Amino acid sequence: MLIVMHRHATQEQVDQVMAAVEAMGLTAEPIPGSLRTAIGVLGNQGYVDDSTIRTLPGVRETIHVSKPYKMASRDFHPDASVIDVAGVQFGDGLKPVIIAGPCSIETEKQMMDAAEQVKNGGGQMLRGGAFKPRTGPHSFQGLGIEGLKYLQQAGQAFNLPVVTEVMRIEQLDKVCQYADMLQIGARNMQNFDLLKEVGKTNHPVLLKRGMSATIEEFLAAAEYILAEGNSRVVLCERGIRTFEKATRNTLDLSVVPLVRDLSHLPIIVDPSHATGKRMLVPVMTKAALVAGAHGVMMEVHPDPASALCDGAQSLSGDQFAGLMQDVNHLLGFLGYGT
Amino acid sequence: MLIVMHRHATQEQVDQVMAAVEAMGLTAEPIPGSLRTAIGVLGNQGYVDDSTIRTLPGVRETIHVSKPYKMASRDFHPDASVIDVAGVQFGDGLKPVIIAGPCSIETEKQMMDAAEQVKNGGGQMLRGGAFKPRTGPHSFQGLGIEGLKYLQQAGQAFNLPVVTEVMRIEQLDKVCQYADMLQIGARNMQNFDLLKEVGKTNHPVLLKRGMSATIEEFLAAAEYILAEGNSRVVLCERGIRTFEKATRNTLDLSVVPLVRDLSHLPIIVDPSHATGKRMLVPVMTKAALVAGAHGVMMEVHPDPASALCDGAQSLSGDQFAGLMQDVNHLLGFLGYGT
Amino acid sequence: MLIVMHRHATQEQVDQVMAAVEAMGLTAEPIPGSLRTAIGVLGNQGYVDDSTIRTLPGVRETIHVSKPYKMASRDFHPDASVIDVAGVQFGDGLKPVIIAGPCSIETEKQMMDAAEQVKNGGGQMLRGGAFKPRTGPHSFQGLGIEGLKYLQQAGQAFNLPVVTEVMRIEQLDKVCQYADMLQIGARNMQNFDLLKEVGKTNHPVLLKRGMSATIEEFLAAAEYILAEGNSRVVLCERGIRTFEKATRNTLDLSVVPLVRDLSHLPIIVDPSHATGKRMLVPVMTKAALVAGAHGVMMEVHPDPASALCDGAQSLSGDQFAGLMQDVNHLLGFLGYGT
Amino acid sequence: MLIVMHRHATQEQVDQVMAAVEAMGLTAEPIPGSLRTAIGVLGNQGYVDDSTIRTLPGVRETIHVSKPYKMASRDFHPDASVIDVAGVQFGDGLKPVIIAGPCSIETEKQMMDAAEQVKNGGGQMLRGGAFKPRTGPHSFQGLGIEGLKYLQQAGQAFNLPVVTEVMRIEQLDKVCQYADMLQIGARNMQNFDLLKEVGKTNHPVLLKRGMSATIEEFLAAAEYILAEGNSRVVLCERGIRTFEKATRNTLDLSVVPLVRDLSHLPIIVDPSHATGKRMLVPVMTKAALVAGAHGVMMEVHPDPASALCDGAQSLSGDQFAGLMQDVNHLLGFLGYGT
Repeated sequence: MLIVMHRHATQEQVDQVMAAVEAMGLTAEPIPGSLRTAIGVLGNQGYVDDSTIRTLPGVRETIHVSKPYKMASRDFHPDASVIDVAGVQFGDGLKPVIIAGPCSIETEKQMMDAAEQVKNGGGQMLRGGAFKPRTGPHSFQGLGIEGLKYLQQAGQAFNLPVVTEVMRIEQLDKVCQYADMLQIGARNMQNFDLLKEVGKTNHPVLLKRGMSATIEEFLAAAEYILAEGNSRVVLCERGIRTFEKATRNTLDLSVVPLVRDLSHLPIIVDPSHATGKRMLVPVMTKAALVAGAHGVMMEVHPDPASALCDGAQSLSGDQFAGLMQDVNHLLGFLGYGT
Repeated sequence: MLIVMHRHATQEQVDQVMAAVEAMGLTAEPIPGSLRTAIGVLGNQGYVDDSTIRTLPGVRETIHVSKPYKMASRDFHPDASVIDVAGVQFGDGLKPVIIAGPCSIETEKQMMDAAEQVKNGGGQMLRGGAFKPRTGPHSFQGLGIEGLKYLQQAGQAFNLPVVTEVMRIEQLDKVCQYADMLQIGARNMQNFDLLKEVGKTNHPVLLKRGMSATIEEFLAAAEYILAEGNSRVVLCERGIRTFEKATRNTLDLSVVPLVRDLSHLPIIVDPSHATGKRMLVPVMTKAALVAGAHGVMMEVHPDPASALCDGAQSLSGDQFAGLMQDVNHLLGFLGYGT
Repeated sequence: MLIVMHRHATQEQVDQVMAAVEAMGLTAEPIPGSLRTAIGVLGNQGYVDDSTIRTLPGVRETIHVSKPYKMASRDFHPDASVIDVAGVQFGDGLKPVIIAGPCSIETEKQMMDAAEQVKNGGGQMLRGGAFKPRTGPHSFQGLGIEGLKYLQQAGQAFNLPVVTEVMRIEQLDKVCQYADMLQIGARNMQNFDLLKEVGKTNHPVLLKRGMSATIEEFLAAAEYILAEGNSRVVLCERGIRTFEKATRNTLDLSVVPLVRDLSHLPIIVDPSHATGKRMLVPVMTKAALVAGAHGVMMEVHPDPASALCDGAQSLSGDQFAGLMQDVNHLLGFLGYGT
Repeated sequence: MLIVMHRHATQEQVDQVMAAVEAMGLTAEPIPGSLRTAIGVLGNQGYVDDSTIRTLPGVRETIHVSKPYKMASRDFHPDASVIDVAGVQFGDGLKPVIIAGPCSIETEKQMMDAAEQVKNGGGQMLRGGAFKPRTGPHSFQGLGIEGLKYLQQAGQAFNLPVVTEVMRIEQLDKVCQYADMLQIGARNMQNFDLLKEVGKTNHPVLLKRGMSATIEEFLAAAEYILAEGNSRVVLCERGIRTFEKATRNTLDLSVVPLVRDLSHLPIIVDPSHATGKRMLVPVMTKAALVAGAHGVMMEVHPDPASALCDGAQSLSGDQFAGLMQDVNHLLGFLGYGT
């Protein structure tokens, strides 16, 4: 950490700040400049909480050099991680994983039909939501446990590992029982209690970026899971909230190569939620793969026009099959075998 | 809802959309324009889920007229609500409520000292966090239940109702036992399961705006609580996330008069979290009161320089006492007796 | 336009609004709903200025159906435009155009070296700035007219059409004399006087998206140029400002397919300014091409480490050559001949 | 500036960076930490352009300590500036200045009526736009020079200094001739050529914050004017662009006390453009004054319902008179005589 003093800070103020740093068990090294003094803080093994120093008299600002994550960082863990979900693998050099399925689980038949379409199209994992976070309380809220059973059945029938969102700690055991991978939704990315509990399981986790989370916060959220002992985390970019409303969110695709540089964890992209428009899903799927995503998760519904949720961004089975032809062609070009 | 067709949409496409609307049990009324056709959707009693209509062929966009909240709206509930918390009241025409206390509960003595300072300064409620949401897992996470006891004790000793954040459903019973008011933090504003459970209690709720939540989403979150039968909700503006990093968040003070117009629920302001800078807290407290806030919540710590959390935005007891003199003077000017 | 009345609006208020609409020479059609009345506004040939209606008593909100652009819209101009710049063409089905060169023109030799590298790598156009918009006045501000001469020379020597930014109207004649294409920078996207003057020339224009401009505003800015008679406009996405600071801006790649749907004008991408990081330029260049960009503009400098501007996001000649091999390989895969 | 090296940076890389710093005529001081090395850059007299250093091998990031402004900073100019506009003064301890008038100048009579209302209400300066920046080219663009004459006449008739926006350099002489104060609009805050030319005049300048400008960029824009020798700059907060669309922009009122701390220049607030809603103008005017604004600029129109521009956010003469009663009452409370 670097502490920058005001230009007119007195020597007494500098001394007081240095004493406060030493009181934290750290070393303070003054760096006199031509305009002002700065104080380097040394000896910390990670992020320093600066809140008590930031407002001492004479301090202009504190600047963090360490990041609030360490286990998720490639700096401390140079080799890329491979995450295995019931035989499907996410990681550097591996063929990107296509996860598909409906936004929400509606009926047994709908899930079976969706799974068949995902399998036939060439998808490797099945998604579906049993508990739905909806902006307003008067919208469809999901089938709950009954839905999880349909999801598991459909996954088993077509040999597709399944991923589903867990929204509350009490559901965790049940969801672990039915699902191969736990999804933490964007709205829960900083639900730290949930992250910790998920970190205590040994289940693979798909952690979605919060809609206003910085990369630093995203990796710090992953750190919560890793810190509890569960290192099976796959990150998912799903769009951030900006002033632009022409798309549902703004897909921040540059974070894919950026996160690959900063972290050893795999990262996938969800173009369905990012754009909110079916028309944009195929082209952004391909762009994501070229950007280096370790996978893509998209919404596929047997009958988008009657979907209870997110029909506008869901592909039909035929559209998915068509897209997958393109995707496989592209993956061949990118050097991944079939 | 208004459905706007593409300029070149065919009559067949218009008919198909109208049929889809009728299939939802609603009435479709075509509005032919000089450039394109629009279709009005009538007969709905609230927000219409448009996801299945939005992507029918020929549809350019759908425009919502109804809001995703109704019980929180002044349109359906014209009279302003008064929320009582153990004798302290929030509402139109009532003297604004000052809530103060430390970010996190650290020791029994710290809470007693803080409560004394809050009481002496003229604050009406005491705050303090027992469970702390922190960006990274390596920061202080709060004292838990033990902290709740200190909070309650301090509140009782100085006759100050207490408010504290509840972060997970399993804690809810305990928190209800110790606290007079439940706080839902910004990160949990769309933790819908938690909102529903809180809605099933009869405890007053302080609902903080999510850092990237629109006013519409904020009121829809309140609706989740109201819809379960708990109408004792006080809203809290605490800053939103924008590109500007000179302050911790951007205090969106205009929402105070705006929410007062849109909703019957009281709204208070938290200048400590909004600005993140102690220096800005007094002036923004006064601005909030002039803007019509029904209260202000701020951080006060007996020794900000040694605070385990948010020291940089906490006032000392003396600073709080000084500010409260100004506040009382201002409230007198605004017509509130002492 | 749709005018939504308050739930409790009186018939008199509805009548007053309808009269105001008729006074504008338009037709008002009431649409009575179960909860409130809405009023459709018909007869307009484009965007309606609603400012006088929006605050009449009883009006809750006005909703625009028409967009503030028409000539830039595909709705009114279904065929994609092809823009020719001294023989280089931007448009649907054409091989995407690679524009490269330094951020700023520094010396005659630097431009010659850069042009040689761009040509050898396979770029089709040369860029370079003679007038630089810099955040602070104490940074290098560009060579001015002298720089334009170096740019033109270098372009002619290697048979590369050149594009350069015009920042003020008085420079326009000079810039037209030396450059094949005029660039309007992001900071000037809503410098409407400049747009109009550029619209009066017959020079091709590269219009960069403002850093906080919506797609609607972006196309409305293009409309300013088109409305003056110059239809030779190429759009350029260069990143928007968001809360995320890990990249210089947030590259909003989804707008490429979106703009291709909304407008007939070509759109290219500038990954150098969007990301601000050299490391991200190659991968985002390829992602942009897969997303359907009609071209990519990037910064290439003979010696990035000594660049007077934007060295951190510039590729060296060797890096550019390496990237262009990948790009050509990718374009071949996408079906564009060599 | 602080240069942070990667954890695994080699000594050779550290040496290379230090050599690059020395080559810039600055001093490099290594600060070895337990996890990585940082390099302090000393000897600079202001902001250091880091673009050539930022991407040297082994560099993780560069952190600026100096700001891109100096003359605008209170650090280098501790005493608050007082700006005089034809006898009306903006500055610390002085009664805040109320500027009012229509968005655009429409007719001679409209300006006379507006000026009379402003004068009668107690406003001290008159505003009105002759050149209007409008999002689309098909909206009213202003009366031009003819309008300036009406503005000047009205100002002289009622002894009110006038302020009007200058949008292009060629207009500058004319605008200086008719107006007492030059306004730089939000869209032109980074039109650096215009800033420089305005800086060469001796006219007072009202500089509006760009809609996506940080405080740092805002003050750096002021620096452009100061650097040319014109120190008569008044800043104006007018709302920033965020994800929230319930108001036209988000009024960032916390910047008032923040800018007062960082800079010696006066700062005023424009609640009309910030909120876009007439209903919010009075309450936010009062909040701005309590927040420490040195003035407020608001839109007043003799007949808002027929205004050619921004009618929805304009007060009528009666509304202005009513607000001014409240304002004067509040200013009395705040200690300003009448």
